[in-house]
Parts: sequence; structure tokens; C-alpha cells
Amino acid sequence: MKSPPSGRFGPRVMAIADHLAEYTDASPGLTCLYMTLAHRAVAAELSKLMATAGMETTIDAVGNVIGRIASAKPNTRTVIVGSHYDTVHNAGKYDGRLGIITAIVMSEELQRSGRKLPFHLEVVGLAEEEGVRFSTPYIGSGALAGRFDPQWLSRRDSAGLAMEDVIRESGGDPDAIPKLARKRGDLLAYLEVHIEQGPVLLSENLPLGVVTAIAGAARYRITVHGEAGHAGTVPLALRHDAAVAAADLIRFVEQRCLQSEGMVGTIGQLSVPNGAMNVIPARCDLSLDVRAGDDAALGAALADIRAEIGRISMRRGVSFEIDEILRAPAAACAPHLQQLFADAIGRTGHPARRLMSGAGHDAVMFSGLTDIGMLFVRCGNGGVSHSPLETIDGRDADLAVRVLLDAVSNLAA
Amino acid sequence: MKSPPSGRFGPRVMAIADHLAEYTDASPGLTCLYMTLAHRAVAAELSKLMATAGMETTIDAVGNVIGRIASAKPNTRTVIVGSHYDTVHNAGKYDGRLGIITAIVMSEELQRSGRKLPFHLEVVGLAEEEGVRFSTPYIGSGALAGRFDPQWLSRRDSAGLAMEDVIRESGGDPDAIPKLARKRGDLLAYLEVHIEQGPVLLSENLPLGVVTAIAGAARYRITVHGEAGHAGTVPLALRHDAAVAAADLIRFVEQRCLQSEGMVGTIGQLSVPNGAMNVIPARCDLSLDVRAGDDAALGAALADIRAEIGRISMRRGVSFEIDEILRAPAAACAPHLQQLFADAIGRTGHPARRLMSGAGHDAVMFSGLTDIGMLFVRCGNGGVSHSPLETIDGRDADLAVRVLLDAVSNLAA
Repeated sequence: MKSPPSGRFGPRVMAIADHLAEYTDASPGLTCLYMTLAHRAVAAELSKLMATAGMETTIDAVGNVIGRIASAKPNTRTVIVGSHYDTVHNAGKYDGRLGIITAIVMSEELQRSGRKLPFHLEVVGLAEEEGVRFSTPYIGSGALAGRFDPQWLSRRDSAGLAMEDVIRESGGDPDAIPKLARKRGDLLAYLEVHIEQGPVLLSENLPLGVVTAIAGAARYRITVHGEAGHAGTVPLALRHDAAVAAADLIRFVEQRCLQSEGMVGTIGQLSVPNGAMNVIPARCDLSLDVRAGDDAALGAALADIRAEIGRISMRRGVSFEIDEILRAPAAACAPHLQQLFADAIGRTGHPARRLMSGAGHDAVMFSGLTDIGMLFVRCGNGGVSHSPLETIDGRDADLAVRVLLDAVSNLAA
Repeated sequence: MKSPPSGRFGPRVMAIADHLAEYTDASPGLTCLYMTLAHRAVAAELSKLMATAGMETTIDAVGNVIGRIASAKPNTRTVIVGSHYDTVHNAGKYDGRLGIITAIVMSEELQRSGRKLPFHLEVVGLAEEEGVRFSTPYIGSGALAGRFDPQWLSRRDSAGLAMEDVIRESGGDPDAIPKLARKRGDLLAYLEVHIEQGPVLLSENLPLGVVTAIAGAARYRITVHGEAGHAGTVPLALRHDAAVAAADLIRFVEQRCLQSEGMVGTIGQLSVPNGAMNVIPARCDLSLDVRAGDDAALGAALADIRAEIGRISMRRGVSFEIDEILRAPAAACAPHLQQLFADAIGRTGHPARRLMSGAGHDAVMFSGLTDIGMLFVRCGNGGVSHSPLETIDGRDADLAVRVLLDAVSNLAA
């Protein structure tokens, strides 16, 4: 299906993204870490844009930029539409920011059209999600969702500065963070538009997708212990080769994950320490990362992988040392919000592809506190993200604003 | 079949091995590199043992220790029985030396019994086979076989000393090396007793084995080039994962080598450079070492492996960079010498297991110049070698001397 020509929202989204990308901690490229000068400048720009769009604007104690359009109905609940404005090192212009910019452009259209909403709307530029500066992700969304751990404040950046001091010196207020937490009953939904950061929509030639869940993940460090031997003199049948056992596992992980819709498994780290060409590997170190949109499916796959590890151990006379270093549950998007986005996409003439998010997003923090809904926008250049090569098409940005506006307009209070 | 009790040769072999191991470049343990003080001391001890056994003894220009028992028949040919007396770092006491000691103890018995041989017998302690000091193996056997490359003389050890200077200062004579080369018509056979350095005889509960061939070998450095991606967002079907492609290859190498009797294939080095847990591997480096007793079988396996690499490339959308860094032909042991050893083993009441040598030995240098024959002695401790844990059983040493004596006694001029 051919995308419609770029409407009036697309160029506006792209122009704001380009403008915000001018503020960077390091040139050339875009790097905008939590509470740097570039980061504070972007906050000021976002605040200005929100104010111009008619919103009541504040920057909170951790640096979140919040633009509020109060509903005429005083006792109604609040819908938050947001994403993050910090970036990784040498980042793309759309990861995070696209979700804030589309919400601002939607608000400009709400202002222009005079349309009233039956709930309070808050557009939020979340201060931090990537976790780069303090090895701590979700600082902004964690604070709003009441999940900010006070111990984070003592974490230090690579220059040795404590988060607490950095927040204070940048105009924030560490002591006020607990008061930022939203109450369950006050929220109606959390919506987030985000670049897909993967190739699924691109490969299927679709501009937008509806996120079903943010994947649950399990990560392990695994060491296979085998037995060294001479590569020429030990027959294959008498070997206990740690690398071959690792290869068995790598292949099984792929086969097992392929059986489960949307599940992914990755061995990103792999090495035979001090390996020599003529020595049978006594040891092989590897990492394992498995993600799935459904916790039960993830658990079943992990159980199968552990069972296979047992079989490989028996068959090859090797042993596995397994350290679980992360286990995060999946965050499901509310079915009614999935349907809201799907219907809105349908009204643009495109099919509403539903897909899992394998990457984490701020929405995870709001999961459990309120219903969450996410809209993915097609990522260009093969789906690359966390890179200056990250791109989106202006026509897709236009569609994203239209779908977000449609969804917000049709969301019942 | 139960081994017979240790005869009179076993304790003698073990005592000489223990004594020679007292000379070491580094304590504790045994290290005896080419032309060190320990190495020259071992040469002097071997020379003394040979002289006491009634041999005419010389130390040649590269440090080979040669004991000769001339035949009464003046125009007959020469049988060389030898192995090397240098070691690796932190070595075992039997690798190499067992072949010299069993030949010396056999000569002591020839002297005692007064038995005459129809050929000249030379027991040779070869000066260097391991290639540790100058990264150059086969210095001793290479010189005798006329395969010493004069360019080796300019190679330097880790202290920067040139081989040429080291040989000269240790009493050798670099200029005389070409004259050491034996003439084809003068040799009748080269025989070598060696510790197996592997687990085959041990696992089959056999004291001795007849070597069919010293394996031909091929070695490669391989790099798999795939495509990086986010471990959460790129579906398995859209990946070009270099580590999974490497796992495909590792598994195939094992399966293919298992189809060919005695063939071995090893991936000793394996790594995803700068791998991260949440990044799909864009690259995987590995080594491949394949060995077989038969060159045609090795060639066929390598062709199959290359064909599979082609299939993996197509299937996974990755590419392989393949550097051949070694290709050495197999050295076959002469069938009549295999039978000679087999008959002699049979007369001790043991089955004559024939097996390939996956490791290289001095006999390789003599292959093509004269017929070669090798006898393997069971290696204890799981088959470990190049380690202080290397062991043999004194009863097996006894049998080795008896079989060597039998073979030499029954070898027709």
C-alpha cells in the first residue's frame, strides 16, 4: 500500500527533530546525556514549544518537561503522552524525541482546531531513559511512576560526579523527587510513540505498528567447562570440547526461539579464553539474552534451554556454569489501547501490524500503574538505531501525528 | 588382556627418564630448550649411556647425539632408531626421550646378548623437535634428513640470540650442517618409539600401538562477517548473525570429520570481538585445524567443509574470509614396518592396534628419504602430554623395549 503524500505534520516533526539535534555534548554527531548543557538546552526548547502550543509548562525536579492541557472537566483523569529526550553516545535524532515531538505537534493541532478533550492531557519530555551517564535508565519515567529508587542518587558518572549533585546543580531538586510520583487513580493511560529501532515494519513496507507488549527479558552469563587436549591426538569421540558444546547451545537457542512468535534469543558474547589453534577448548564463555512478549512463553523457552543444557552436558561430558544477571517481566500493552491505535491506523488506509517491542521503553515504568499503549514508527536504513544512520521518513512522521491525534480524540474518559 | 609383570627393561627405562629430567632450564618441573645448559647436559648423559652400551658415539654439528653399532657386513645400509631430547616448557619426561631411552636399553641388551645385526644401527638423540626456542621445529631431524633450511640459522630466540650464534657457542658448527644429510641409498629405515600423547590406547586398555601414518594437516583462520543489530528488535529471520553462522560451521566440522576414520577437526580459537550481550554479532573469528592420515580423505573433507561454508553464507546472508595458514601432507608409515611392529606386539600376547598419529614427529622429516615406522606407547592420566602430568607405566616401557628389540632383530637387511 502506498503511503499518502506528506501532510502538514511531517515537515514540522522533522524540522523540530533537526533543531533539537543541534544541541549536543560532542560534535560532530548527537550526544545528549542526562543534565549536560545540551540536555538542559533541549529541555528549554521543549518547554518553549509546549508553551507556544498553549500548554501550561513546567520542568520538574528530575528534569522532565511537562506541558499540560487541563480538561474543562475538573475531576477527570490524566492521559500522559511522552517519551525521552536524552540520547546515547553518537545517537540518532528520533529515538525518544519522536514521541515528544509528535505529541507536541498533535497539541499544536488541538490548539488550532479548538478541540476539547474529556481528560487532562500531559505531554511529557522524559529526562532520561538510556542509562548512559549514570548506568541508570528510566530516571525521568521512574520518578513519575513512583519507581525512582533513592539509592540511584549516589551513583556517579565517569567523571565521579554523584547524580544527586548533578541534579541539584542543574536546577533540579533531589529532595522533591518522591513527590513527583503519580497516583494510580489520577491516570487514565500512558501513550508513547517511538521509532521501531528494528527492521520489521520496514521489511513489510508498513509505516506504523501497534506494540503488543514490551518484551520480558532474561540474560545469562554462561561458562562451558570442558577438557583441554591435543587437537591432533584426541579422537572426536573422546573429547569434551567446550566450544562444540557452546555451538550446540547456540543452535538450540535459535531453533527454540523460532518456535515462539516474536521471541528472540541472542548470543552476543562468545569466546574461548586463550584459545590456541591446536588445543581442544577447555572453556568457552558466552552470553545469552532471550526476550519474549509473554512471560509464560519466555519461561517455557528458558526451561527448554536449561533442559537442553542438561542434555548437552551429558552427551559431551562438559559442565555449564549459568549466572542469571537479568530477569524482567514483559509489560503488556492494554488491549483497548492497542485497538485504539489499530483503528486509527486503519482509518489512514494502512494495515495495523501488531508487533512486540524487543527493546525497553519508558512505558515499562508506567506498566502496572496505568494502562500503557505504544505506537511504532518505521525505522529506515535497515532498521538501524543508536547510530547517526537512524532515519525515519517524513511521511511516516505525518501519519504518526495523525494516528496519535485520532487515538487521543477517540480515547474515552 | 592383562599386561605381563614389569620385566627388567621397564625399571631401567623409567630410571633413565627420571635422571634426564633432573636437568632443566627452570625449576620446579622440566623444561629443556634447544642448546641451553640443561640441553647440553642431557646430550652428554645420552652420549655416556650410548658409549657404555658399546656404541661409537658422536655429537653432531646441530647437537644430535648419535650412537653407532657398525654391522660386520661393511657395505650394508643403516637403520636409525631415534627421537628428540628437547622438550616444551613445563614438559613431561617421556615425550621424545622415551624413543631414545628405549633404543639405548635395547642396545644394552644387544651388547649383553652379543647379537649381531645385518645392518648398521644408529641410535639417535635428536637435538630439537618441539620448535619452542626458535619457533622452528625439527632442527635435529631436519639436519639428518637434508631438510634443514639455512635460513633457519638467522632466526632469533626471545632473548634476541640468533640460532647460528647459539649453535656455534654451544659447540656446534653451523657451516657443517649440510654435510649431516644422509643419503637415500645409505638408509634402510627410520624407526621411532613415542608416547602416544593421546587417549586412544588408554581408552582401549592396550599398552602399544602401530602408527599407520602421521596425519596431514590443514589450518585456517576464518572470519565470519555478519550484520550487527539490536538483540531485542531484530527478528531471528531477519538476522545475519556471525556467531550463529560460526556455530553452524563448528557443528558441521565435527559431523564431517566423524565420517572419516581417524580424522579430527578442531576449532581451538573462537571469539566475537567486542561482543555485547544485547548486540547481534557482526563478526566472529575462529580457527580451524583438520587432520587425517590420508591426504585424499583430508582433501575431500576440506572440500565438503568449503561447500558447507558456501551453503551457510547463502542461508544466513553472511560472508566468510578464509586464510589457509598450513597445509602439510600425511606421512605414511611403510606397510612392512607396520607389520614388523604388529608381529612383534603380537608375540607379546597383545593385540596390535593400528592408529594414526595426529601430532607431528621427527619421523615426518625422514618420510620420503627412507621407510619410516613408529611404535606408540600408552599415555597415562587420560592421555595428557606437554604437561608435568604426562605419565607412562613401567610395564608398558618394558614391552616397548621388547617389541623394538624384536622388530630390529627381525628387520631384514
